[in-house]
Amino acid sequence: MASIKDVANLAGVGLGTASRALSGKGYVAPETKRKIEEAARKLSYTPNVFAQNLLKNRSGIIGILVPALDHCFFSRLVQELESDLYKKGYKTMLCCTVSGGHGEEDYLDMLENNLVDGIITATHSFNDEAYLRSKRVVVSFDRDFGGHIPMVRSDHKAAGRMAAEHFIDRGCKKILNIYGEDAREGHISVGMAHRELKDCLEAAGIQVLEEYTRQDKFDMGYYSEIAGRCLERYRDVDGVFASDPLAEAFLWEGERRGKKIPQDLKIISYDGTEMTRSISPRISAIVQQIDKISQDLTNILTRRIQGEEIPEDKITEILWRQGETC
Amino acid sequence: MASIKDVANLAGVGLGTASRALSGKGYVAPETKRKIEEAARKLSYTPNVFAQNLLKNRSGIIGILVPALDHCFFSRLVQELESDLYKKGYKTMLCCTVSGGHGEEDYLDMLENNLVDGIITATHSFNDEAYLRSKRVVVSFDRDFGGHIPMVRSDHKAAGRMAAEHFIDRGCKKILNIYGEDAREGHISVGMAHRELKDCLEAAGIQVLEEYTRQDKFDMGYYSEIAGRCLERYRDVDGVFASDPLAEAFLWEGERRGKKIPQDLKIISYDGTEMTRSISPRISAIVQQIDKISQDLTNILTRRIQGEEIPEDKITEILWRQGETC
Repeated sequence: MASIKDVANLAGVGLGTASRALSGKGYVAPETKRKIEEAARKLSYTPNVFAQNLLKNRSGIIGILVPALDHCFFSRLVQELESDLYKKGYKTMLCCTVSGGHGEEDYLDMLENNLVDGIITATHSFNDEAYLRSKRVVVSFDRDFGGHIPMVRSDHKAAGRMAAEHFIDRGCKKILNIYGEDAREGHISVGMAHRELKDCLEAAGIQVLEEYTRQDKFDMGYYSEIAGRCLERYRDVDGVFASDPLAEAFLWEGERRGKKIPQDLKIISYDGTEMTRSISPRISAIVQQIDKISQDLTNILTRRIQGEEIPEDKITEILWRQGETC
Repeated sequence: MASIKDVANLAGVGLGTASRALSGKGYVAPETKRKIEEAARKLSYTPNVFAQNLLKNRSGIIGILVPALDHCFFSRLVQELESDLYKKGYKTMLCCTVSGGHGEEDYLDMLENNLVDGIITATHSFNDEAYLRSKRVVVSFDRDFGGHIPMVRSDHKAAGRMAAEHFIDRGCKKILNIYGEDAREGHISVGMAHRELKDCLEAAGIQVLEEYTRQDKFDMGYYSEIAGRCLERYRDVDGVFASDPLAEAFLWEGERRGKKIPQDLKIISYDGTEMTRSISPRISAIVQQIDKISQDLTNILTRRIQGEEIPEDKITEILWRQGETC
């Protein structure tokens, strides 16, 4: 396929002249323009959007960084983002930082060296520096860059309170509060839900046990192992608060050990993706509204690309969905 | 952020000269080169890969077209492809043709107008023309373009035979064979598995009922509705062969109607993604090896981009995974 360079060579002109003639921007002598257009026709040259954007220093491409797609939350988020971005005229470049095995920094270098117009990050690593150095417009999902990068997240405090209320209401005595080790520190916001849950339960005199999961593993085998181990260790736990796939693992591992759900063990999942209502019994869940989150991320990013200053974070309401496990 | 055009302007040279100086390709007078480099430094210009690739007419980007990510098969396939492509130096542009709501043709136009080096399509629409017209290197997953585009797929005939053998072995009398309406025609290869199943079962004197699902819906609500309707209509069916999420829906809807699984209803799913073994009971499945499929797609595509002629299709072995439903 012919490049603009081939066209310039055939017409016997420089690259800049060919580019000006074909984009219609800037002066080119009529006779030269005719020669260039003829060369373009002969070579079946298609003016490409990248070439045109290059002159404007725009690509129309947004890089999305997520850990992996085999976690249902992220596959759903990416699907929504891809659709919302496309509606606004942007293409999606997908970067899976954990499953791809290359690390965030490799991807950021790659995005930096390629003309992406912006970056949406939903990853959990601890390397903030690379983002803060970035020359691109960046928006974050759930990751707190200390106010330097706008963040979209759910109302985690309300989620923690809501879970606590349900456990208290059902008469639970000992709750297992389990979440990613990365969210123990302040910079991953979802940790707020778990800290709020702990505070509310302890204030009500309910015992809270805490366990942490790795942030680089998302397969059900790992989650089943964790759930099984916790159920062996804490035999009198009567409530669990965990993310969707882990909550599902507690459901199956609990049943396997003869526990009646919800009588013996109450389960509340946080994310509330499709999965939690497609299985039987349906899991009682606090729902993060992925469609709204995606719209907020897309709006903030595209408006910032257009030069608007939208520094504030955006907090999305969470919802309760009654299932059969609590 | 500075573009190469800004650098050229500041140095008072043409775009082509600035490009030659910064890429180190082609002659530029030493003094001019120094001026251009100084301008680049002043403007913190980062030479970008797109600009460089533009001259080579390469972008290092591959477009992947899938219907949606909320079907577990596709989210897994995309995750594998992204990783395999990255290892070979390619970036992934994601296009969700159904969930995005824009249609394949819009995406193909977009990919055509942007400098993608190749396209992997795993969609099920009926519009072959747009692909055959494409100037890009295209490789297909499971979709038969009549030999004009290389295709990677699983050994569907073996899958159909394997499913039939298990149903016959378990003494089934009436099987529901349910699959996408798009796979009834020859061009979506997975239909081969369902046709082979039918032939093998009928040859053994077993009755086969057929139903078809829409190709533009992937949510569990839809699958549950279909499964419920089929179980009401065909009350004496004792075996079902369906894709993963639909098989899961038959499991829950069957249990809801008081059927014992597998005693009253045997279920075999075809795809065998993680999902089928993470739920309880585990679904007996025929496994498409997504990791191998991804490697084959990536290998064929990148070798063709490099000019090799690899026209043959690639057929991947399927595997049986014993679960608790058949």
